[in-house]
Amino acid sequence: MPFEVTILGSNSALPTSNRYPTAQVLNVLGRFFLIDCGEGTQIQLRRNKIGFGKIKHIFISHLHGDHYFGLIGLISTLNLLGLKTDIHIYSASELKNLLQPQIDFFRGEMSVNLIFHPLNFKKQQKIYEDKRVEVISFPVKHSIPTCGFLFRETHKPANIKKEMIENYNIPLNKIKDIKNGADFVADDGKVILNKQLTIPPSKPRSYAFCTDTAPHFPNLEIIKNVDLLYHEATFPESMKDFANKTFHSTTIDAGEMAKQANAKKLIIGHFSARYKDVSLFLEEAKTVFKNTVLAKDGKTYSIPGKR
Amino acid sequence: MPFEVTILGSNSALPTSNRYPTAQVLNVLGRFFLIDCGEGTQIQLRRNKIGFGKIKHIFISHLHGDHYFGLIGLISTLNLLGLKTDIHIYSASELKNLLQPQIDFFRGEMSVNLIFHPLNFKKQQKIYEDKRVEVISFPVKHSIPTCGFLFRETHKPANIKKEMIENYNIPLNKIKDIKNGADFVADDGKVILNKQLTIPPSKPRSYAFCTDTAPHFPNLEIIKNVDLLYHEATFPESMKDFANKTFHSTTIDAGEMAKQANAKKLIIGHFSARYKDVSLFLEEAKTVFKNTVLAKDGKTYSIPGKR
Repeated sequence: MPFEVTILGSNSALPTSNRYPTAQVLNVLGRFFLIDCGEGTQIQLRRNKIGFGKIKHIFISHLHGDHYFGLIGLISTLNLLGLKTDIHIYSASELKNLLQPQIDFFRGEMSVNLIFHPLNFKKQQKIYEDKRVEVISFPVKHSIPTCGFLFRETHKPANIKKEMIENYNIPLNKIKDIKNGADFVADDGKVILNKQLTIPPSKPRSYAFCTDTAPHFPNLEIIKNVDLLYHEATFPESMKDFANKTFHSTTIDAGEMAKQANAKKLIIGHFSARYKDVSLFLEEAKTVFKNTVLAKDGKTYSIPGKR
Repeated sequence: MPFEVTILGSNSALPTSNRYPTAQVLNVLGRFFLIDCGEGTQIQLRRNKIGFGKIKHIFISHLHGDHYFGLIGLISTLNLLGLKTDIHIYSASELKNLLQPQIDFFRGEMSVNLIFHPLNFKKQQKIYEDKRVEVISFPVKHSIPTCGFLFRETHKPANIKKEMIENYNIPLNKIKDIKNGADFVADDGKVILNKQLTIPPSKPRSYAFCTDTAPHFPNLEIIKNVDLLYHEATFPESMKDFANKTFHSTTIDAGEMAKQANAKKLIIGHFSARYKDVSLFLEEAKTVFKNTVLAKDGKTYSIPGKR
């Protein structure tokens, strides 16, 4: 079952010819979460063959244009395609007002039903959950209210061994309980322990998205032991003062966050438009946190299931 | 002196992976006019190395999103770059209201000064003029109010022959008059006729932009003898009924407009997202109007000066 993120845009605010502004799609067990929606997101979705109909949940970290200017175009396209579905948008509450005149201007009825969910920029909050996945928003440290997001698998049932079903003649109505940890009493009264019947589930996986933000160590607790951390590194370390001033992170900041959070892997992105070649960014981040990779538009990064 | 258009986007409303929505930059004698501004225009400007600071006049044909969703991003970028300049936007009057909440939300002062000029959708109107260039808007026939635009050179002074300045000892303060048609009286009282002194100017050049529109023959008068006509051909001829219904043109419609207008050259564009390969479009249009070319993102089409 997939747990993977596809980077649609790895650039920061000013446009470049080779990177799009921030947007990414996270596929968690077939749920497609769109995180940020910079200008050109819908073109990037097409290029990466991600069906528009799959996206039902959109998370907007903050209201700088390079993180949301693509949203009106995406909504318009969902509408032109006549998709009849709820679209949940998690963002600062102002977003609705910013887009409302344009939404009102669409001719005819809206086929999609937009549901806006305001983010809390004071404290962390569970903003989404279903049987298998939950999403937590948490404030980060930027020049305007901004949230990071943690996506994680929750309860994963064990896998039942097929031969045990046969051996002990286990009826269908007991299987769910066994997957969730129950022992089984056989016809002869013998108790078969759960650990004999099942293969343990793989470990729940997690992904954290932190941009735009200065390094913010109070967040280490929420992203602790995350499998994959996307953390902005807008600037190389030589621009540390400017990064501080603009509430952004350097390569070393991102590496430090990953290291202290005990992340398994780090993706750095949100590169300043000043840098066409970002190989220096990778070099620098790796001096602090070895398992770092560069975000690249169109590339997918998977978290394998592990037992 | 250049008179050339660079296509930034040749696609219609639904996104494709290989064409951007409508936008183009017309360079008339060093004046850069942006015509329509679909999503991704600023990325295309960067790719085509067209400086943001050059654009002072933006013409928006109509308020379907694929013709204006890139405008807020472009304005934001002009602002981030700190450009202190007037930006004139010619569009339906509603555009200002659609964008106002987002403009108000920009933090700090706006460095650019936006000046909105409402278009007239009932009749043609001169919307811009300077000493050398004028722009006329004219209503076309679409599902919402839409204008086409005619850009043309106006008065062009003659070129004075250098050797005549020397031969007749012509003072500097007479040169402007001679370029504009005056004869010259030499020191000995001899009248030198203007045609002896000058080389005639090249013919004024013109460019017409017609999209989105059904073929609209009342416009033939305004685009008569145009040097270069950009006319939409959203669909091939087999889709004629659907084109009619949606107030778009087919390849044959576009060719017919060019032929009847006695245009010198036709560019067809605004291709439906259904068609990745548009070679059929060219074939069809050429059966009616031979000097047709396909719009291609990133390509520049020049009108050479002619005497």
